Amino acid sequence: MIKNEIKLLKKPRLKKPVLIEGLPGFGLVGRLAAEHLVKQLKAVKFAEFYSPGFPPQVKILPDGTVSMHKAEFYYSKQKKKDLIILLGDDQAATIEWQYSVCGDIIEFARKNNTSMIITLGGYGVRGIPKKPRVFGAATDKSLIKTFSKHGALFGKVGGDIIGAAGLLIGIGALRGIPGVCLMGETHGSYVDPKAASSVLKVLTSYLGLKISFKELDEKAKEIEKMIKRIEEVQKTQQATIPKPPSHEPLTYIR
Amino acid sequence: MIKNEIKLLKKPRLKKPVLIEGLPGFGLVGRLAAEHLVKQLKAVKFAEFYSPGFPPQVKILPDGTVSMHKAEFYYSKQKKKDLIILLGDDQAATIEWQYSVCGDIIEFARKNNTSMIITLGGYGVRGIPKKPRVFGAATDKSLIKTFSKHGALFGKVGGDIIGAAGLLIGIGALRGIPGVCLMGETHGSYVDPKAASSVLKVLTSYLGLKISFKELDEKAKEIEKMIKRIEEVQKTQQATIPKPPSHEPLTYIR
Amino acid sequence: MIKNEIKLLKKPRLKKPVLIEGLPGFGLVGRLAAEHLVKQLKAVKFAEFYSPGFPPQVKILPDGTVSMHKAEFYYSKQKKKDLIILLGDDQAATIEWQYSVCGDIIEFARKNNTSMIITLGGYGVRGIPKKPRVFGAATDKSLIKTFSKHGALFGKVGGDIIGAAGLLIGIGALRGIPGVCLMGETHGSYVDPKAASSVLKVLTSYLGLKISFKELDEKAKEIEKMIKRIEEVQKTQQATIPKPPSHEPLTYIR
Amino acid sequence: MIKNEIKLLKKPRLKKPVLIEGLPGFGLVGRLAAEHLVKQLKAVKFAEFYSPGFPPQVKILPDGTVSMHKAEFYYSKQKKKDLIILLGDDQAATIEWQYSVCGDIIEFARKNNTSMIITLGGYGVRGIPKKPRVFGAATDKSLIKTFSKHGALFGKVGGDIIGAAGLLIGIGALRGIPGVCLMGETHGSYVDPKAASSVLKVLTSYLGLKISFKELDEKAKEIEKMIKRIEEVQKTQQATIPKPPSHEPLTYIR
Repeated sequence: MIKNEIKLLKKPRLKKPVLIEGLPGFGLVGRLAAEHLVKQLKAVKFAEFYSPGFPPQVKILPDGTVSMHKAEFYYSKQKKKDLIILLGDDQAATIEWQYSVCGDIIEFARKNNTSMIITLGGYGVRGIPKKPRVFGAATDKSLIKTFSKHGALFGKVGGDIIGAAGLLIGIGALRGIPGVCLMGETHGSYVDPKAASSVLKVLTSYLGLKISFKELDEKAKEIEKMIKRIEEVQKTQQATIPKPPSHEPLTYIR
Repeated sequence: MIKNEIKLLKKPRLKKPVLIEGLPGFGLVGRLAAEHLVKQLKAVKFAEFYSPGFPPQVKILPDGTVSMHKAEFYYSKQKKKDLIILLGDDQAATIEWQYSVCGDIIEFARKNNTSMIITLGGYGVRGIPKKPRVFGAATDKSLIKTFSKHGALFGKVGGDIIGAAGLLIGIGALRGIPGVCLMGETHGSYVDPKAASSVLKVLTSYLGLKISFKELDEKAKEIEKMIKRIEEVQKTQQATIPKPPSHEPLTYIR
Repeated sequence: MIKNEIKLLKKPRLKKPVLIEGLPGFGLVGRLAAEHLVKQLKAVKFAEFYSPGFPPQVKILPDGTVSMHKAEFYYSKQKKKDLIILLGDDQAATIEWQYSVCGDIIEFARKNNTSMIITLGGYGVRGIPKKPRVFGAATDKSLIKTFSKHGALFGKVGGDIIGAAGLLIGIGALRGIPGVCLMGETHGSYVDPKAASSVLKVLTSYLGLKISFKELDEKAKEIEKMIKRIEEVQKTQQATIPKPPSHEPLTYIR
Repeated sequence: MIKNEIKLLKKPRLKKPVLIEGLPGFGLVGRLAAEHLVKQLKAVKFAEFYSPGFPPQVKILPDGTVSMHKAEFYYSKQKKKDLIILLGDDQAATIEWQYSVCGDIIEFARKNNTSMIITLGGYGVRGIPKKPRVFGAATDKSLIKTFSKHGALFGKVGGDIIGAAGLLIGIGALRGIPGVCLMGETHGSYVDPKAASSVLKVLTSYLGLKISFKELDEKAKEIEKMIKRIEEVQKTQQATIPKPPSHEPLTYIR
C-alpha cells in the first residue's frame, strides 16, 4: 500500500456539493463541529479514505473489533447545494503526505462536482474566550463578503493556517474550487466544544440550516467545569491557568 | 533497490493457508511465538522479503557470512488449512514503509490464497504477570466468537495496535481477508517467552495443533531468574522494579 | 498532489535569459536582493511553482485571503539577455525535495532557454561587516574571470553552499547551464539589506543595469538602528553582541 | 532530479572487474584506502554518480569552482580482473536512499560485468590498535577461505555492517555477485590511515598488486603525533584518552 486509497461505499448523485472539512486540529474545533453536523443532519457515510501517511496502526474498538486510521466522507442532501462532510482520525504525518492526502481529497471532491470548500479549525489565543469569535480566511474576495454577513471576521488575524484546514483550500483554489476557512477562537489546551459551536453557527447560517446545539453546549459545560476545577486546584497551589505549550505559538492554527 | 522484493525459494501449493505474523515487537512476544512454531512444525522457508524500509545494513553471522535484514515466509502443510508463518528481523523504519511492507505482505498472502491472518504481539501492562492473559482484537465479530472459545479475551483493552501486528489485519480486511491479533500480557522491559507461550496456546488450540512448549518454558525460567537477580540487586539498592520507559505508555502494543 | 507543479500565467518569449535565484537563506540576503531587483525592474510574474516539499499550510494575507507557500518566476526584458527572477517563500523541507524542487526549476529554466544561472545568498561571518564583501563560486573558470571584474571575490572562502543557492548551479551545470553563486558577507543573526545591496551591486554591474538602492539603504539603516539599540541594552547588561547560534557554523551558507 | 543519475565520462571495456568500495565511514578507513589505491594505480575516472539522497549542497573548491556531492567510479586495467574503484563524498542520508544508491551502484556494476564486490571499512574498537587487524565478512564461504589466506580474520566479530559497506555486498549477493567486506580495526574518533593500510595490505595481497604505502604511512605518523599531543594535554588535565561518543556502540561499523 503505497498510495492513498478511497473505498467507495455508495455512489450518491450530489448537486454542486459543498465540502466541509473536520480533521483533528487545534482544540479539536473542526473535528467536533463537523462531527456534530454529521449527527444533526444524519449524514450518510459514502466513502473511506486510507493513506500511508496516517499512523501505521489500528484502533481497538470497545467491541473488540479493529479499525484502521482513516478519514470518512459523509453526504447530506439539501435543497440547493448538497453537503460532503469529511471526518478523520488524523492529519497526515509528514509534509509530503499532507500534500498527497489533501491533493487526493480535492481530486475526489472534484469528481463529485464540489462547488466550494469550507474548512473548520481553531485559532489559538491567550486565555479562554467567553464568547469565541470566528475568524475567516478565503481564497476569493467574494467569499469574504459572503461569510462576513454570517459573522466571520476577516483580515483580523495573520500567520499561517497549518495542515489540512489550510492546504485543502489552497490546493482547492489551484484546482479551481473556491474555499474558505472558519476558525473559532480557542485556548488550544482543551478540547473546545464552545469554539466548535461558534464555528458551526457561522457555517449553518451560511448554509441556511437549523440544527440543535444542545449536545455541543453540554459538552462545553462539562469542559468548563473541568477547567474550573483545575483552576481552583491551581489557585490553592498559587499557580495560574495553564498556558499553551511554549513551543507552540499562540497564533498556531491547524 | 527502491521497492520491496520477494525472492521465491519454493512454490508450495497451499490449501487456504492461515498467515501467522511474528515480527519483532513489544517483549518480542510475537517473534518468539512464531519462531517457536516454525521450529516445532519444522516449517519450510519458501520466500524471503527485502525492503528499502529495513535497516540499511547486513548482519555478520557467527560463521563470518553476512545476511541482509529481511523477513522470511515459512509454510507448514496441515490437514485442513495450511500455515504460512512470517518471521522477520525488523519492522519497517518509517510510517510509509510500514504501509508499503504490510501492503506487499498482504499482496503475497493473497496470491497464496490466504484465508485468514493471525498476528501475534505483546500487550504492555504494569508489573510482571504471573500468568499472562491473551487479549484479542479482530476484523470480524465471528472471529471474536471463535477465538473467545480458545481463551482469547476481547473487548477488555483499548488503545491502538501499533505496527505490523495491527496494520496487517487492517490492510488484510481492506483486501477481503479476515484477521485477528493475539496479544500476550507482558511487562515489555524484558524479552517475554512466557507471554509468547500464552499466545501460542490460544493459537495452537484454534489450529488444533499439539506442540511442545518445553523450550519456551525453559527460556521463560531463565528470564525469571534474571529478573529476580535484578530485583534483589535493586532491593539492596532501595530501588523498585524497573518501570517501562515513561515515554512509552503502558498500553503500548506492537 | 505528489509532484511539483508549475502554473504558467504568461508565455513570454525570452532571449537567452539569465536565471536569478532569490529564495530565503542566511540573513535573507538572496531573497532581499532578488525582491529589490524585481521591484526596480518592474519585472512581471509569469509562473508560480508549487511543491509538496514546501510547508503544508497557507499564509493569511492582510486582506483576509490566503496564499499557498510557493515560488514565483518573474521576467524582465533587457537589451541583450533577458532576466528570469525567482522569488520564493521557502526552501524545500527535506533533502530529496531540495533536489526535486531545484531539478524542476532547472528543467523550467532550460525550457525557457536559460543561458546562465546566478544564485544569491549570504556568507556567514563573525561580527557585523561594515562593508560586506561579495564572495563568489562558479561552475566555470570563465565565469570566475568575468565576475571578478565586477567585484566578486573567488577562492577566498571554503565550505559548502547549502540549499538552492548551491544546488541550482550544481544541477544547472549537470544540465549544461553554467552558473555562479554570489554571497554577501553577513552576520546571519539579522535580516541583512546591506549584504543584499553588496550582492546586487556586483550583479547589476555584470548585467549592465542601473537601479536605485535607496529602499535597501533605508532598510539597512533601520536594521542598524535596531542592532545599536540591542547593543546598548546589552552593554548595560554587561553582555556582548549576540553571536550566531553555536550549532550553526560561521561558514554556514544557504 | 528525483532519481540517482550516472554521468558516463568514458566507456572502458572491463574484464570481469572487481568493484572496490570506498565511501566515507568509521575512521574514514574505506575512503582513505580506496583513494590511496586510485592514486597508486593511476586509476581513471569514467563515471560520476549523483543522488537526491546526497547532501543538497555544493562544495566550494580552492580555485573558486563548485562541485556537487557525488560518488565517482574509477577503473584500472589489470592482468586478470580489472578494477572498478568507487570513491564518494557521502553515504546517502536516509534509509531508503541508502537502498536506492546501493541498488543503482550494483546495477551499474552488473552492466560492467562485475564479478566480485569488495567493500572497505573500519571496525570500531576500544583503544588505539598498535597494529590494526582486518576483520572480514563475506557473502560466500569460498570467499572466506580465499581472504583468510590473505590475512583477513573471519568469524571473530559480530554485529552489523552499517551503510554502503554492508548493503553493497548484501544487495550484490541478491543480484548474484559475491562480495566481501574488509574492516580495519580503528578507534573511530580519528581519521585512521593506519587501519586503511592494514585493509589495503589484505586487498592488494588478494589482487596480487604491489603498491607503495609511503603516503598512508606518513599520514598515519601525523595522526599519531596529533593524538600524542592531545593525550599529553589531557594528562596534564588529569583526563583520559577520549572515548568514542557513548551513543555510538564500539562495535559500530560503517
